[in-house]
Amino acid sequence: MSAYPASVRIVEVGPRDGLQNEKTIVPAATKIELIDRLSRTGLQTIEATSFVSPRWVPQLADAAEVYAGIDRQPGIAYPVLVPNLQGYERAIAVGVREVAVFAAASEAFSRKNINATIDESLDRFAPVLERARADGVKVRGYVSTVLGCPYQGDVPLADVVRVARRLHDAGCYEISLGDTIGIGTPTKARAMLAAVGEAVPMSALAIHFHDTRGQALANILACLELGVAVVDAAVSGAGGCPYANGATGNVASEDVVYMLEGMGVATGVDLPRLVETGNWLSARLGRETSSKVGRAAA
Amino acid sequence: MSAYPASVRIVEVGPRDGLQNEKTIVPAATKIELIDRLSRTGLQTIEATSFVSPRWVPQLADAAEVYAGIDRQPGIAYPVLVPNLQGYERAIAVGVREVAVFAAASEAFSRKNINATIDESLDRFAPVLERARADGVKVRGYVSTVLGCPYQGDVPLADVVRVARRLHDAGCYEISLGDTIGIGTPTKARAMLAAVGEAVPMSALAIHFHDTRGQALANILACLELGVAVVDAAVSGAGGCPYANGATGNVASEDVVYMLEGMGVATGVDLPRLVETGNWLSARLGRETSSKVGRAAA
Repeated sequence: MSAYPASVRIVEVGPRDGLQNEKTIVPAATKIELIDRLSRTGLQTIEATSFVSPRWVPQLADAAEVYAGIDRQPGIAYPVLVPNLQGYERAIAVGVREVAVFAAASEAFSRKNINATIDESLDRFAPVLERARADGVKVRGYVSTVLGCPYQGDVPLADVVRVARRLHDAGCYEISLGDTIGIGTPTKARAMLAAVGEAVPMSALAIHFHDTRGQALANILACLELGVAVVDAAVSGAGGCPYANGATGNVASEDVVYMLEGMGVATGVDLPRLVETGNWLSARLGRETSSKVGRAAA
Repeated sequence: MSAYPASVRIVEVGPRDGLQNEKTIVPAATKIELIDRLSRTGLQTIEATSFVSPRWVPQLADAAEVYAGIDRQPGIAYPVLVPNLQGYERAIAVGVREVAVFAAASEAFSRKNINATIDESLDRFAPVLERARADGVKVRGYVSTVLGCPYQGDVPLADVVRVARRLHDAGCYEISLGDTIGIGTPTKARAMLAAVGEAVPMSALAIHFHDTRGQALANILACLELGVAVVDAAVSGAGGCPYANGATGNVASEDVVYMLEGMGVATGVDLPRLVETGNWLSARLGRETSSKVGRAAA
């Protein structure tokens, strides 16, 4: 029998990674209510929004308004995504104390997504990390396309390891490894995590698996066996997949918590409250929840 | 790292367990076309229909017509469900060479579902197994509610083991262990399988997990580590869950095959053909496929 971690911290990314990929533009008041509801579920980390340019992500153009409006609770971190120093400054101006930066493991994805090579994107984040260190602001790092890329196909493990190591060396306290297109399967996911785990301490790693092909929970399970204890997920499975019409993006937080708690792995999350929040959000989005636990409870 | 089996046999239950639980009544010609399409995907076992009384399962009232109409291929088994000796005789009359019988691990479920105690239900199958042995007909056994029951809640492991052992002792060549309400999580699923595996050889066991709470693939993954090498699934995830409105029932065959092949576990199934068949079936049923692989490919 495998040894799983005794507890797992869920990083709730619904308000950012979820809503950013929903077609519906959600009013700021609803985003604020969503985050406040999530704050009452026991979650310790809630990614609140993104200070990326509104031209790129119109869904989150109200980042400053949303961040200023949420009823922040002690003991809960509310990181926000920042693309560069300008975004960092806008975030800090409204009181943000944790930010997230991002890079791709796939060169083709990096060029298509942010019009920069991987190295250029990492260079762009250097001043953010420098400023954050001086400001005492924590920085989380995302690596996308760790199990495959919609443009180049396979992504060499060495590239994933290199980008994760650079973000860690640059000062990111945690590196979230993202299967952006939900293409991985358990043995590949585990092999990827094992490889990164040789370059970055497992305690500084998180997994961020999309459920586009239904594999996310199985991939998470396989990775838990290596001791990873931080899992990204989005309540109600908010956010579709921009690479497959009608397909699922983020794995639903409810389904992750159901699995973990059922296995005796503590998450600290009140599942009924989380399910209620996910089903509430789906109603606001005018669509069926992508959480199967949410659907079974409805 | 865990050792997984080198190959897994998928038992396709869509035409029976799937369609039996769909609200739409599917014409016999469509059922026949479904089975014939499945026969061209590389599947080795396709559960074709059920000779249960049409009063109980009107969706499959055309069992004899369907079975007689399919273009049976050498090397593929087409088992059918039979509830008793009368059903067995109707099946044999149209050329059936493999049947399946069923019992519940939960006493409450057995009484509600078939108005008989578990022991009464097993006694009812004794003459079927006797006749099948004399006729050289193979018999598969189902045990339902192995991880929980919609009526009694928890189901003691000892009851699961007892029912599985009795079916095996009575002559079933394979026992399929069903999480009928999709309530299990990986460690519980694995503990259940391990317990049954002490009473019945692992090579005579199959797993049949519903995806009502999104756990099916993770549960299958956990069980593969014990060496189980037969997995029940339904193309397009056909069949809802009668215990939760709008929820998913059977795990989608496409998603199981995607996971297994991605892990290097051979299924012999041509995934693109299977996906095509699942998406074709969903169109016939007038609803979105429950297979995430199917949806990502659409």
